[in-house]
Amino acid sequence: MTVIPAAARGSDSYVVGVDFGTLSGRAVVVRVHDGQELATVVHEYPHAVIERELPGTGHPLPPDWALQHSEDWREVLRTVVPAALAVSGVDPAHVIGIATDFTASTVLPVLADGTPLAETTEWAAHPHAWPKLWKHHAAQDQADRINALAHARGEKWISRYGGRISAEWQYAKALQVLEEDPAVYAACARWIEAADWIVWQLTGVESRNACTAGYSGIFQDGGYPSEEYLAALHPGFADFARTRLEHPLAPLGSRVGSLTARAAEWTGLPAGIAVAAGNVDAHVAAPAARAVENGQLLALMGTSTCHVVNGAALADVPGICGVVEDGIVTGSYRYEAGQSAVGDIFAWWLRQGLPAHYLAEAEAVGADRHELLSRKAAAQPVGGHGLVALDWMNGNRSTLVDHNLSGVIVGLGLNTRPEEIYRALLEATAFGTRVIVEALEQGGVPVSEFIVTGGLKKNALLMQIYADVLRRPVSLAQSDQGPALGSAIHAAVAAGAHPDVRSAAAAMGRVLRGAYQPDPGRADAYDALYAEYRALHDHFGTGPDKLLHRLSRIRNAALTTPTTPTTALTDPSEVR
Amino acid sequence: MTVIPAAARGSDSYVVGVDFGTLSGRAVVVRVHDGQELATVVHEYPHAVIERELPGTGHPLPPDWALQHSEDWREVLRTVVPAALAVSGVDPAHVIGIATDFTASTVLPVLADGTPLAETTEWAAHPHAWPKLWKHHAAQDQADRINALAHARGEKWISRYGGRISAEWQYAKALQVLEEDPAVYAACARWIEAADWIVWQLTGVESRNACTAGYSGIFQDGGYPSEEYLAALHPGFADFARTRLEHPLAPLGSRVGSLTARAAEWTGLPAGIAVAAGNVDAHVAAPAARAVENGQLLALMGTSTCHVVNGAALADVPGICGVVEDGIVTGSYRYEAGQSAVGDIFAWWLRQGLPAHYLAEAEAVGADRHELLSRKAAAQPVGGHGLVALDWMNGNRSTLVDHNLSGVIVGLGLNTRPEEIYRALLEATAFGTRVIVEALEQGGVPVSEFIVTGGLKKNALLMQIYADVLRRPVSLAQSDQGPALGSAIHAAVAAGAHPDVRSAAAAMGRVLRGAYQPDPGRADAYDALYAEYRALHDHFGTGPDKLLHRLSRIRNAALTTPTTPTTALTDPSEVR
Repeated sequence: MTVIPAAARGSDSYVVGVDFGTLSGRAVVVRVHDGQELATVVHEYPHAVIERELPGTGHPLPPDWALQHSEDWREVLRTVVPAALAVSGVDPAHVIGIATDFTASTVLPVLADGTPLAETTEWAAHPHAWPKLWKHHAAQDQADRINALAHARGEKWISRYGGRISAEWQYAKALQVLEEDPAVYAACARWIEAADWIVWQLTGVESRNACTAGYSGIFQDGGYPSEEYLAALHPGFADFARTRLEHPLAPLGSRVGSLTARAAEWTGLPAGIAVAAGNVDAHVAAPAARAVENGQLLALMGTSTCHVVNGAALADVPGICGVVEDGIVTGSYRYEAGQSAVGDIFAWWLRQGLPAHYLAEAEAVGADRHELLSRKAAAQPVGGHGLVALDWMNGNRSTLVDHNLSGVIVGLGLNTRPEEIYRALLEATAFGTRVIVEALEQGGVPVSEFIVTGGLKKNALLMQIYADVLRRPVSLAQSDQGPALGSAIHAAVAAGAHPDVRSAAAAMGRVLRGAYQPDPGRADAYDALYAEYRALHDHFGTGPDKLLHRLSRIRNAALTTPTTPTTALTDPSEVR
Repeated sequence: MTVIPAAARGSDSYVVGVDFGTLSGRAVVVRVHDGQELATVVHEYPHAVIERELPGTGHPLPPDWALQHSEDWREVLRTVVPAALAVSGVDPAHVIGIATDFTASTVLPVLADGTPLAETTEWAAHPHAWPKLWKHHAAQDQADRINALAHARGEKWISRYGGRISAEWQYAKALQVLEEDPAVYAACARWIEAADWIVWQLTGVESRNACTAGYSGIFQDGGYPSEEYLAALHPGFADFARTRLEHPLAPLGSRVGSLTARAAEWTGLPAGIAVAAGNVDAHVAAPAARAVENGQLLALMGTSTCHVVNGAALADVPGICGVVEDGIVTGSYRYEAGQSAVGDIFAWWLRQGLPAHYLAEAEAVGADRHELLSRKAAAQPVGGHGLVALDWMNGNRSTLVDHNLSGVIVGLGLNTRPEEIYRALLEATAFGTRVIVEALEQGGVPVSEFIVTGGLKKNALLMQIYADVLRRPVSLAQSDQGPALGSAIHAAVAAGAHPDVRSAAAAMGRVLRGAYQPDPGRADAYDALYAEYRALHDHFGTGPDKLLHRLSRIRNAALTTPTTPTTALTDPSEVR
């Protein structure tokens, strides 16, 4: 146990971190000097994800849309912050700062004063006036054109994003608005990440954080994409960045303003306390796990996984989502990668069902279904199931950056059991992570430590498999509220309680270092299986035979122009 | 409806067919002039499949062994024949013949008088003295050497078996006896198919039927493999065929003898009636479905599928299990192919479990689980699931003849549902059948009609998928007892009630011709999916990347020399 220096502001100062997730928001109250979490409160968004129809009007939404309601986010501030304060027993007068993190890229059109267009009577009935959640996937056409044009023009920035800008990011979504509802686009004074909008709500002043600007805002080398490039996408889009994005960037951990009287009333916090620059969940979680030094890779593992790691130098790593200077802490380049589905894959397998006697066994031993399959799977020797799977059930975010890929299971036999497929799926995600780690290292970004935060860190079998497959110790973030604690750390820095994020992480972050150690025998066995994964990966992912793409097209065509159902004749006449 | 000529022996003559399956035997009493089935009785073998230990001694058996008890077979004769006669109400005096069919190659060592070695006190404790069931797979090493030597010496007969002799057949199993228990081999006067042994029990005289001799006995062009070849396998094996197999071959449907007094006592049938040459289940089922003309392919579809079809000319079709002259009816060449698992694959998927609400739905509508998934799957458009699977969960019998292959599922997404995988598996077996049909046609054996017998003919969705995938009408054998009825037809021929199998089939066989017709739209859609199946098939089955073979080796090595279980640390120490 290392000695923790008392924080500058003494032991009686506190900060609040608020994490805005996909379905809920949560607040944590944290002691500044040692990072102790005194209370956590969660609030589900009343409108959750808006996918079928617009609230109020009942206007139906097309496929692949995903919106949110900005009032749901304000309600988080009004509910969880006062509640967490009450539970913690902390005197609000001792809270010195607040910080927030958000899903990304969740983005919305607002008036010049920050009012969401969707909250105005004039625009509320326009779907494109509403905030688009990160997983709004209806702008794929725009994203395809953004990428094609960037490559055609040789735009320098495209290589910083692994060669492909996501349909989830700011430009594709804004271009979709312009093309499908130009009146909304015209009325949109500012196009802003929800991560920055919530800070505007707290402080009354607009800000733009360096992290989301660098990723979904394509801010590289001091500027946004050129007007010539944007004009070539669409003439009306030429001034998009200049008029709707441009704003001085706030470094992470900086104080962008003070809590307004209105926001103080919502939250029960003192007006005037520090409010930090906005942030993104996976990124802000890094200091909470003390993953701030170069080479410390943080994996936020839940339904999907996001990887962030700092490197000393700027490198273009093929297939990596993005790189941003000063993305987490100043003086480093922050690389981001991801796997589109991880826990979602394990849950998918369980949704297929389990044999009745497995369910009875789970009930008898008081285990949930994941635990049951994990117990059965843990007893197997590595490779004993004879299976290899590809973890692409929701496409591949890194390093192939291809959402038309799909999942594959190879090696099935009549004796294959549910826990064997389960284990093969766990392993597939570990192999997918190894591909990313190897790409980073081969691209010049060393990875010295693998640190896990997020719900899956509690899956002991999964963690041990990652240690064995990566042949590296796996460390675990101690907090169960990685992003919210990370936000609190940023709040402490913004309030001046710690000089910078790095030292605040040292004081307030907690990590169980080397919780899982690789076993040499299993690591050797996994090297052999990984070679087979890699062969499958290359065949289906980068080989000339684009079978998975063709299956995707066949499926889409079948669902658009279906054949007649395969009904059987009920009374065929007999002919001898 | 064609006019059926009354059989020569009048409307009051009957025959008995007895089918010996893997787990049970059944008898059917049939009217000679029109094939009407008056009664069917089934009897489960008391010893079923002997896989773990030798009865009596408790001697443990090694992996992959599968034996049977010859007394179980006699008991079938003693139970089901009298019971079926009683149920039918037929006067035994009106029964003019009996015939049998058996699994193949199920084979046993006997004394010169036909007594099984396993029934002697001297040899009963020797595992190798016992009958080896068709699915005894412990002679793979011997089969590998049989094939390697045949190719090395350029043996002409090897091409008649698609280039590979199965470990399930007579030679591999006999060679295993010689090498592992030479005393048993020395005591074995005759090495005989159970199909012929049961006829010996009924008639008191040895016979060898042309069908099993041509397939598992490697009898081609008038002779067995040469003594030089056999000696090169093992010096002690040189005279194997000459001393232990050689015997005049009995054409199918021929009368090989008369029912002995002892067998008459067992069965309740009149002594002296005709007993036909032995036969194999899939082959004997062909006349029951009137599949005796060239080009009529009969598929016996159950846990696995066996295909038999007659052709006018001798052709070496790569990957086809075997070809035999006069294999079913005289004057034609009979080709055999197979799929190692079909219904077993669908059952495997259901063994993985189903979601609880599916089970509730099945209960609510009174459907079994196959029916429920079929209903849900039938509503999908072709290709709508985006999946392609390889039906190799139990290896590939035709046309790759490779039992080290395994199953593959491609195209999985987080939205993939159980009924979609189920349908993809149904389709995979249909695609596998199409590969066989195309191989036959390309090899010079036209296939004009696809006729199905066996339990799966009742699966309407499956039958319609086969019609659509094969772009051919699918006809259904009318009888639910295809092999037993086929045996009865052979009994009628042996008794002289019909001049030959072809005319007996016309009188006694029944088929629902064209019960399922291909739908042009679905057939077109399946052409596109079949092209993807074929690409996968070729990549994994014949391509240079032998991934499935490597996975098989990895699995076997892992099970032989296992890594330590993947247990997790329970109390890792914290290091900050």
